Amino acid sequence: MKEFRNLVSSEDFSCEELLELMELGAEIYSNPEKFSEKCRGKILASLFFEPSTRTRLSFEAAMLRLGGSCITVPDPKVSSATKGESLQDTIRTVGCYSDIIAMRHPHEGSAELAKEVTLVPFINAGDGGHQHPTQTLTDLLTISQYKKSLENMTIGLCGDLKFGRTVHSLVKTLSKFKGNKFIFISPVELVIPEYIKMYLNDRNVEFIEVRTIEEVMDKLDILYMTRVQRERFFNEADYVRLKDTYILDNKKMKTAKDDMIILHPLPRVNEIATEVDSDHRAKYFNQVKFGMIIRMALILKLLEVK
Amino acid sequence: MKEFRNLVSSEDFSCEELLELMELGAEIYSNPEKFSEKCRGKILASLFFEPSTRTRLSFEAAMLRLGGSCITVPDPKVSSATKGESLQDTIRTVGCYSDIIAMRHPHEGSAELAKEVTLVPFINAGDGGHQHPTQTLTDLLTISQYKKSLENMTIGLCGDLKFGRTVHSLVKTLSKFKGNKFIFISPVELVIPEYIKMYLNDRNVEFIEVRTIEEVMDKLDILYMTRVQRERFFNEADYVRLKDTYILDNKKMKTAKDDMIILHPLPRVNEIATEVDSDHRAKYFNQVKFGMIIRMALILKLLEVK
Amino acid sequence: MKEFRNLVSSEDFSCEELLELMELGAEIYSNPEKFSEKCRGKILASLFFEPSTRTRLSFEAAMLRLGGSCITVPDPKVSSATKGESLQDTIRTVGCYSDIIAMRHPHEGSAELAKEVTLVPFINAGDGGHQHPTQTLTDLLTISQYKKSLENMTIGLCGDLKFGRTVHSLVKTLSKFKGNKFIFISPVELVIPEYIKMYLNDRNVEFIEVRTIEEVMDKLDILYMTRVQRERFFNEADYVRLKDTYILDNKKMKTAKDDMIILHPLPRVNEIATEVDSDHRAKYFNQVKFGMIIRMALILKLLEVK
Repeated sequence: MKEFRNLVSSEDFSCEELLELMELGAEIYSNPEKFSEKCRGKILASLFFEPSTRTRLSFEAAMLRLGGSCITVPDPKVSSATKGESLQDTIRTVGCYSDIIAMRHPHEGSAELAKEVTLVPFINAGDGGHQHPTQTLTDLLTISQYKKSLENMTIGLCGDLKFGRTVHSLVKTLSKFKGNKFIFISPVELVIPEYIKMYLNDRNVEFIEVRTIEEVMDKLDILYMTRVQRERFFNEADYVRLKDTYILDNKKMKTAKDDMIILHPLPRVNEIATEVDSDHRAKYFNQVKFGMIIRMALILKLLEVK
Repeated sequence: MKEFRNLVSSEDFSCEELLELMELGAEIYSNPEKFSEKCRGKILASLFFEPSTRTRLSFEAAMLRLGGSCITVPDPKVSSATKGESLQDTIRTVGCYSDIIAMRHPHEGSAELAKEVTLVPFINAGDGGHQHPTQTLTDLLTISQYKKSLENMTIGLCGDLKFGRTVHSLVKTLSKFKGNKFIFISPVELVIPEYIKMYLNDRNVEFIEVRTIEEVMDKLDILYMTRVQRERFFNEADYVRLKDTYILDNKKMKTAKDDMIILHPLPRVNEIATEVDSDHRAKYFNQVKFGMIIRMALILKLLEVK
Repeated sequence: MKEFRNLVSSEDFSCEELLELMELGAEIYSNPEKFSEKCRGKILASLFFEPSTRTRLSFEAAMLRLGGSCITVPDPKVSSATKGESLQDTIRTVGCYSDIIAMRHPHEGSAELAKEVTLVPFINAGDGGHQHPTQTLTDLLTISQYKKSLENMTIGLCGDLKFGRTVHSLVKTLSKFKGNKFIFISPVELVIPEYIKMYLNDRNVEFIEVRTIEEVMDKLDILYMTRVQRERFFNEADYVRLKDTYILDNKKMKTAKDDMIILHPLPRVNEIATEVDSDHRAKYFNQVKFGMIIRMALILKLLEVK
């Protein structure tokens, strides 16, 4: 059987491979026409056993922009799973129809399970709280496009650092590039987990933890915002007391560097005031576009299309 | 930022623009092959936050017949909105993936809101009871194809004239073309609203109101049928008493002109007896086809594809 | 109006036509590139008023592999039917948008109804327990590919032979080819219906009925497995007692011929142990692929594409 690559975890790619992907992404971004027929005749299966419209549309648009086409399961209820079929059988079946699979699934570890049996390259589009590697690739491409490097930056991560899987994955990946420092900005209830701190300590990566954005704003090259979800708090009073501290507005932006960039994995609720959207440093909607671009690069890489 | 056109209300186009669209529609209808690759590489996002299979499929088929492709949200429940995202953020996000957006939404005014922030041309595919401009374009193309003109006609509109938004929009639009007269045929409970009558009076457009189809049938160039919904009546007795008066059958057709055309926005329930389907004047299924054709013309116009 | 062919029942094709389809399927399988642009510009409407992800994706992938495109109703709830429209009107409407329709519907006879009014070639993708002709075509192509013939075989059918529509249809179709014998393997609660036995007797086709796989395994050229659904039994005790008898495992495979093939319409639950998947005679995942291939052949035939 033919060997092929999958993407289950953001750790699956080496730094060299990540840089190659970033380079390919940059080329697609500046010259999309060159790639518009690369996947003619190829089919992406987008299997969303947990709804995530944003991620699904991003994958599908990526395949379409490469000249390929898509078959899709947009809705978890409408699947053979209801007839008692195992995930492995579903993945094998869909591999008979398609050339590459992107799957979102609510259960942790389901992507690993799928990888074992897939007949075509497989991309994890999120499995439970576990992994969401294409978000990390999106973040990296956005950073490399605006900062022209993945090294020697001070990255502030703000909000829910305890449960936010995109934060954990991004920190681990950026820590592999030299000279990066992290500032973790969160309420005490939602601090970055111990295992991430140990991971950084083991690699001699510098980091600090603070409680407010204001005290570190002027040091940041990147401010990565995340949602502070009401349901993470024990009581409403704590939520109300803390939430404003973690809302980014024009006032808080005053001390930021002129070339700092603001990122957010979206969707946002209210953690970035809409007044910030017109700030030249707000790059979260550009990030959406780079999400599609990097998925184009990823599809090309996994399908080994030159 | 690049300027572009949107379609939110059927008033957005001038008479000249409408006639241009009709001409383009006629050309597509008679020579579809000429247009089959015009949108190669372009993506339509069809966002249906309220289900309307007919309208969604019409838009998607239109884009596919132009050689383009589609990403779609077919189901209101499966959207990022469930994560608390604003409609504006959703529209901006989807604009990063697509070249043009068609949106159906249950809330009045949502199309106007979307238009404010969209990054790509935006088409209102219906927002609540408010507007559904592509239905009006569909009606106009069907009329112009069969009557070879949009002027000097007597148009009968029958059924629920109070709540039927397609009727209001069609009357306002046709009243801009010279020589058209309107006959409003409805039960007293469902008469045409005052504001439409004032609109017509202000422009010196002739109209009359009647209670039965029979008394005016021989005068009509167009008979536009609509559903009389049971739930619009205060009591079942009124509904049963009135409903037959507004059902079109072969008997009522006897006094109609030979070149009269019957239109209906569909879906129909029972307001046109199926025996009428084989009458050569029944054009409601042809209207469905013209609905796709005019959406092709609209997409070409908004994308400025020559 | 132009004449065209539909597929409602597996009886709709003659043996000659079936053999032609198998030949076309074989050609597509061995040379897919030759067909990759045959349906450029054509649209398949896949209407699934009953969910069946597997069948839907198979049809859509088939059309995409021919260079065509798809519009789809993936979910029964999201249809105009909720507005009271008749199935006939829906079919006529969708025929205005598309070049060919594949429909799945929960009601028996709905495919026959649709065929009466369709404006474009219509394929029954399953209507209730009634018919599912493309599954039979799938089975035939798989058999003809591995056995190089559709004649002179001993075919064992195992499991729920009472309710399994795919079994009934396959038996009737294979009985038209000379020299085939059938062995029906089922619990007494789920035996093959009388009308099938009469059908075979009328045509002098040999068959026997047995209770265990083991007693006939060494005679079989084909073993067609089906699900034994728990809900078919009057009580849990019967189900538990019988179910293991109808589970295929490596032990039961020991006496099978080396060139026997195992088929299954999928999804499976537990009626084939996963250890059998790596047996060289297990062809049920290949069957999935042939399902897509034969649908490509069928689309080409019905659209009369050369």
